[in-house]
Amino acid sequence: MSEPTLDILGIGNAIVDVQARAEESFLAAEGLAKGGMQLVGAEAAEALYGRMGPGVESSGGSAANTCAVAAALGARVGFLGKVAADALGGVFAHDIRAAGVHFPTRPLDSGAPTARCLILVTPDGQRTMNTFLGACVHFAGADVDAAEVARARVVYLEGYLFDPPAAQAAFHAASRAAHAAGRQVALTLSDPFCVERHRQAFRRFVREEADILFANESEILSLYETDDFEAAASLLRQEVSLAALTRSERGSVILSGEARHEVAAVPTRVVDTTGAGDAYAAGFLAALTRGLPLPECGRWGAVAAAEVISHFGARPQADLKALVAAGERGVAALLG
Amino acid sequence: MSEPTLDILGIGNAIVDVQARAEESFLAAEGLAKGGMQLVGAEAAEALYGRMGPGVESSGGSAANTCAVAAALGARVGFLGKVAADALGGVFAHDIRAAGVHFPTRPLDSGAPTARCLILVTPDGQRTMNTFLGACVHFAGADVDAAEVARARVVYLEGYLFDPPAAQAAFHAASRAAHAAGRQVALTLSDPFCVERHRQAFRRFVREEADILFANESEILSLYETDDFEAAASLLRQEVSLAALTRSERGSVILSGEARHEVAAVPTRVVDTTGAGDAYAAGFLAALTRGLPLPECGRWGAVAAAEVISHFGARPQADLKALVAAGERGVAALLG
Repeated sequence: MSEPTLDILGIGNAIVDVQARAEESFLAAEGLAKGGMQLVGAEAAEALYGRMGPGVESSGGSAANTCAVAAALGARVGFLGKVAADALGGVFAHDIRAAGVHFPTRPLDSGAPTARCLILVTPDGQRTMNTFLGACVHFAGADVDAAEVARARVVYLEGYLFDPPAAQAAFHAASRAAHAAGRQVALTLSDPFCVERHRQAFRRFVREEADILFANESEILSLYETDDFEAAASLLRQEVSLAALTRSERGSVILSGEARHEVAAVPTRVVDTTGAGDAYAAGFLAALTRGLPLPECGRWGAVAAAEVISHFGARPQADLKALVAAGERGVAALLG
Repeated sequence: MSEPTLDILGIGNAIVDVQARAEESFLAAEGLAKGGMQLVGAEAAEALYGRMGPGVESSGGSAANTCAVAAALGARVGFLGKVAADALGGVFAHDIRAAGVHFPTRPLDSGAPTARCLILVTPDGQRTMNTFLGACVHFAGADVDAAEVARARVVYLEGYLFDPPAAQAAFHAASRAAHAAGRQVALTLSDPFCVERHRQAFRRFVREEADILFANESEILSLYETDDFEAAASLLRQEVSLAALTRSERGSVILSGEARHEVAAVPTRVVDTTGAGDAYAAGFLAALTRGLPLPECGRWGAVAAAEVISHFGARPQADLKALVAAGERGVAALLG
């Protein structure tokens, strides 16, 4: 088997974020569940956009964010995802390539526009997402190049990709190609509502195909339909060989066989939580694929997450390599 | 003469900003003069975009920024400027309307795309701008609705509008319409290089048509071709009845007939100077059109500028009304 030439290959929805500040009362008036992600059609997206405040556009997408952050940490990264051949598709492609990520997927040249996610950030820093999938629903098994998958130590799949039906096939294709090449498959559950929509498929995928699982507390509780984090962790431990569970300001728990590591969060001022989980996974995988021990993987994840939540937007703005190299005090000083 | 139903009508280039962080070495390699604005064609813009880092898109344009900030301060504001009927044009129109600004200009429905400004922000917070004017070059005298101009206490014109040739006619049309309705004409010089490109036209406009002038130190020095700020101020005082001259961290100087007021800057952490001058003019005009004394106009300008330079992007993120209402300590606390 040849040596991998990529550390991480992410596969996910290729989305441009439109972020705006919003009051709690706006969420209530629009009937939006704070902190979650809902799928919306083209018309509903247009209508919500018309009512929301001035926006800031930047490339997003869960796995794509992870790829950009991991590249900033020095990992060799690729990404597969579907944009349209339109202005926002150009923005997405530019940004991910400018972040140093290999992005070979051909744009969709007719039909649906590039996906966008209307993100409302409330004064407490929480984000509420409304995603119009657009061109992403045309990402299919054919877009998963087995040779690309075989190049990477880890293929990283976002749970949101269970939403567009054709992409589920792409998921399994990627997983088969990875395992055939002796690589690992990582999955993030993405969102508790996404877990609810696809619980059985996720349970099976975790048990049968995933080598590494990322989830936050509400996602893992939803997966195992329990209120008890420790019970969920025990079940998970039997089903996947490596898991990193994030618990916001309480840090993360890493489970590997019989071992359990608790990693502290890096304290920072919360401006916007968009991309926190994506950044954690990026730090974790960037450290893991360079052979660092698991507690260090968790620390890289915590540092990357802290950087991303300390400003508006899901992609890093500070020098992440310097941040992970800095000690605890250095990080605190750099994140201000 | 009827009562004005707008406080400020801005006229300027309708631009979407693409901001990216860049090192000094990148500016040097690209041959870009730090701190300035240069006009670029479609191909040069595309090439520079391809080489620059991941971007963040947000609505910009000098006078348009001023309009958004003034509206956030409670002024009744309109804006005239030309976008194309494309995705970025939709973004611009959404954002300015969502900021509470009346925006009646019809989009260009064929030909050039919406203008964009590629802004490189260096680690010192300075911004270097590369503007592709696109649809803006089609803004002409016919786009200046005299009735809109007559509605506003002050028509505010950005100097950059001297660059697209057809827009110069629009400038004079707006000025005539304003004076015919008994309103005031305000001009900002925009940029020292812009002043160099159009010095004689600016000198004449300041002398013959402007009632209020905004300029920073390098712009006013360029206008009067001198190295001596006081000499420039003396000349200016004879030519325009009210001027506000900004001097970065040294605050601003307001000249009105024989009177001179010095206003301190509001100290803040400089993250990105994009839009500082636009925000100052907004604060000044919002206070002026509600009848506040000149030193208070300068203070509103200083507060608005401090807010805008304390974060990435040219449009306000904090509650500006609360910031101008807060005392000195309150502002320091709010701007962190």
